[in-house]
Amino acid sequence: MKSLLIVAHGSRRSASNEEVAELAKSVSQKKQNEFDEVKCAFLELAEPSIPEGIISCVENGATHIVILPYFLAAGRHVIEDIPHEVSLANCNPEEVKIEIKPHVGAAKNMVDTLLDMSL
Amino acid sequence: MKSLLIVAHGSRRSASNEEVAELAKSVSQKKQNEFDEVKCAFLELAEPSIPEGIISCVENGATHIVILPYFLAAGRHVIEDIPHEVSLANCNPEEVKIEIKPHVGAAKNMVDTLLDMSL
Repeated sequence: MKSLLIVAHGSRRSASNEEVAELAKSVSQKKQNEFDEVKCAFLELAEPSIPEGIISCVENGATHIVILPYFLAAGRHVIEDIPHEVSLANCNPEEVKIEIKPHVGAAKNMVDTLLDMSL
Repeated sequence: MKSLLIVAHGSRRSASNEEVAELAKSVSQKKQNEFDEVKCAFLELAEPSIPEGIISCVENGATHIVILPYFLAAGRHVIEDIPHEVSLANCNPEEVKIEIKPHVGAAKNMVDTLLDMSL
């Protein structure tokens, strides 16, 4: 079973965290979606934390978890903090494969997205 | 003259800030680009600041500045801090039109972008 965990920074503003949860829901409802489950987790200021998100996926039967950093720039949070938080889930790599993907800001279509948004 | 100012959070990690500067450069080089100038500015931890970025656009002749928040979620930074920083540039609205666009996370293609990145 394959799960996608979208990892955002987290905000004190609950509407911002709900926006991420809504996005995870939209991704899970997309037909081309190859994941059995799509969830979100937060680095700071909101719940679930990254280890909690990973453990929840494992409890639901995940054997492969794709971590997608919902960050635009490869700052300290992406380079250091997310891998550290992932390690805290303490999964057995023989039971659960965890794969951390590049951050969203590295998307090939980002220049076009910015130009669309600037109109 | 119309300028685009891409506003990112800013990072202690200089490679992350350079990534944003590179993106601004890529946007400026895109053919469909309707802007005379594309620059970036940072809310925290890096330079130029948002007021510095705006003043630089004005000095270069901008009469219309589009501010694009390079943020994925509408947290406090997007809702409160960016408008506040924009106001600190203290532009005369009769001379310079400043328009703050929705944050990048509100892009219509974000679900597809996330699915592409998760492969």
